Amino acid sequence: MAQQPDNTYDQWWARDDLHYRDGQLHLAGQNLAELAHGAGTPVYAYSAGRVAANLARLVAALTRHGVRHKIFYALKANRFLPLLTYLKLTGNCGLDVCSPGELRLARQVGFREEEITYTNTSVSNDDLEVLQRHPQVWVNCDSLSTIRRLGERCRGRTIGLRINPQLGAGYHPALRYAGEKATKFGLYQDRFEEALSLARSYDLQIKTLHFHCGSGYLTPDLDTFAEILARTNWYLDRCPTIDTLDIGGGLGLPLVESHQPLDLDHWAGIIAGHAQARNLDIQLEPGDYLVKDAGVLILEVNTVEEKGGVMFVGVNGGFNLQNLAVYYDMPFIIAPLVVDGPAPLQQLTIAGNINEAIDLLAEDIFLPPLKEGNLLALLNAGGYGSASSSNHCMRGAFSEYLLL
Amino acid sequence: MAQQPDNTYDQWWARDDLHYRDGQLHLAGQNLAELAHGAGTPVYAYSAGRVAANLARLVAALTRHGVRHKIFYALKANRFLPLLTYLKLTGNCGLDVCSPGELRLARQVGFREEEITYTNTSVSNDDLEVLQRHPQVWVNCDSLSTIRRLGERCRGRTIGLRINPQLGAGYHPALRYAGEKATKFGLYQDRFEEALSLARSYDLQIKTLHFHCGSGYLTPDLDTFAEILARTNWYLDRCPTIDTLDIGGGLGLPLVESHQPLDLDHWAGIIAGHAQARNLDIQLEPGDYLVKDAGVLILEVNTVEEKGGVMFVGVNGGFNLQNLAVYYDMPFIIAPLVVDGPAPLQQLTIAGNINEAIDLLAEDIFLPPLKEGNLLALLNAGGYGSASSSNHCMRGAFSEYLLL
Repeated sequence: MAQQPDNTYDQWWARDDLHYRDGQLHLAGQNLAELAHGAGTPVYAYSAGRVAANLARLVAALTRHGVRHKIFYALKANRFLPLLTYLKLTGNCGLDVCSPGELRLARQVGFREEEITYTNTSVSNDDLEVLQRHPQVWVNCDSLSTIRRLGERCRGRTIGLRINPQLGAGYHPALRYAGEKATKFGLYQDRFEEALSLARSYDLQIKTLHFHCGSGYLTPDLDTFAEILARTNWYLDRCPTIDTLDIGGGLGLPLVESHQPLDLDHWAGIIAGHAQARNLDIQLEPGDYLVKDAGVLILEVNTVEEKGGVMFVGVNGGFNLQNLAVYYDMPFIIAPLVVDGPAPLQQLTIAGNINEAIDLLAEDIFLPPLKEGNLLALLNAGGYGSASSSNHCMRGAFSEYLLL
Repeated sequence: MAQQPDNTYDQWWARDDLHYRDGQLHLAGQNLAELAHGAGTPVYAYSAGRVAANLARLVAALTRHGVRHKIFYALKANRFLPLLTYLKLTGNCGLDVCSPGELRLARQVGFREEEITYTNTSVSNDDLEVLQRHPQVWVNCDSLSTIRRLGERCRGRTIGLRINPQLGAGYHPALRYAGEKATKFGLYQDRFEEALSLARSYDLQIKTLHFHCGSGYLTPDLDTFAEILARTNWYLDRCPTIDTLDIGGGLGLPLVESHQPLDLDHWAGIIAGHAQARNLDIQLEPGDYLVKDAGVLILEVNTVEEKGGVMFVGVNGGFNLQNLAVYYDMPFIIAPLVVDGPAPLQQLTIAGNINEAIDLLAEDIFLPPLKEGNLLALLNAGGYGSASSSNHCMRGAFSEYLLL
């Protein structure tokens, strides 16, 4: 449970750019109730400053540890065009894309080809033909089939190889992209020599070794992260042309009060040790880490009613707009946009407007009393919200605002 | 597992309008490989005749048992406009909708207001204002809040009340819309008298009692279904103006070989006994039941490769186009569009092109050997596919064809 029923509305999540001022929730200096008044709901608001700060924090940690690095934001997490444009203008990152559509979008918002990495699985010939027309994009191949078919089309191209380190970490077992269960991602160790030989047969120049271990690793997972880095030695030993290690994304953020922020000094130290020992440049592809806590989804309460012993708060949006809580057990923090002085907390369940029983945005949380017409913010909603939303039940309409 | 490894490709699912002819899979007389050749992939194909047959089967069973009934297709399952138009022209059904967008769509394709039921939860004032402008639409109210706010706007309107029977049935626990765990749907028994009193205070005329027990009930669930019908007596006793019982949707279809088709004679007999005892008209809202086995999703194989001991077959679409297998454990049947003579079966896992580890469309199934360029049909893909698809990873493009 996010809050305990001691009648104090716990705002453990508050920070400089996200807090109540005179009882009104502000993000990046914007009174969110005022924003919603003009925009209507459902509305997503993203703090550009928070995205930049999340990015700068990674840059600073890696720089402190002397790691030569490049960051490629994984735009699948959030592709709101103003946000992508803003990121380009920070000058601090490129983009990681995973489909021809995303590749074109990256170019549309001004990123140059050499600022784009392409990391995908189940790559089709249509995909490869788009890659062929973008010769400077950095492609990470994750299967023998991709190496062969890319080689046929782009002989001599410089590529990366994505490996499956057979070890994963993340918020949730379904979000571990490598581990005991075989996954579709990456080359396994027993096929790596074959991959090298195949790449050589097309004169493909292997420059990068890539892995991605999952989504949402935090400090307790850093031993696993270090073990994955250690496992890359086996591959690096066998391919001396590799001068860059792409460590993927998956950096986690605190979702509940008991989570500690990822210890970036510890993280960067692990990376630095490995990079220096092997004289490697480092690339990384954070997605959710940059945008998750920068974004809120604002919904309006339309119903407050006890049913079967549960106090349900009905809102005008559902899991089709943001499915992380329903499908991945990633809890949102629910924050009323307006809080009027102290009041006994109520145990509430926030129910969306989709005709599915699973459509609950938060269960058994403690909040000040709510009534019809109140506005709520779902915090930590900035990633995998709009980008993977659907029009299920024709409830897919929303707007998005970049707060600058 | 859908097929056993005895080297016989088991086509237990074949039927008059879905089978191989000279090794080519046909749906509704259409060679699907030829369709895909013209349409490209991903492509959904829907057999209009199968939808009509599924509908006619319900009509026939209810008619045999002397049940006065009306069927309202729940369009949230599939809202492809040609399909909705076709259904209108069958003359056999109205539409059930759950949002203002769906209501407008139903009107756009020619359904009259009185051919439309509106059944939704977490109803907003904006929703109610749309309902106010459609006075003949049959609204099922599922909360005191909706009754009050509808009453304020539409004094004297004829309505239905959705109850929560506190008993559910379906393919999967998450698909049981009523049961031991409190759900957001419907009025609970302890609030029903209050609901009647509230409706009276706005002169609302209560004509219909509505329930929905879940998604995917089959013959073994019919005892539960009968128990739910029996539970409606308590409500009917308390509201003599009710002359119609809406039994919702949720009728299941065989998803695996061990499933038996729902025994519609048994089902209709239960309904008939109850309807006759209480002199009730019956309404029902089948969605998936009408369209699920009428629709296939065709994808192209781009990768066939062993990884970590699993033979992965990569295809050019993912769970963002059809999420029932990933999120609801509803297995698709995978059928190659072309089968060349007898061959040893292979154990395969079908992997989509979305960058998530969960994106597996079928796991550990047995099929004839596949290679790059082959086309596969996902059978039982007609419901909750296109209608709830997303553009996750910008892999959301597909086309749809109605086969007439």
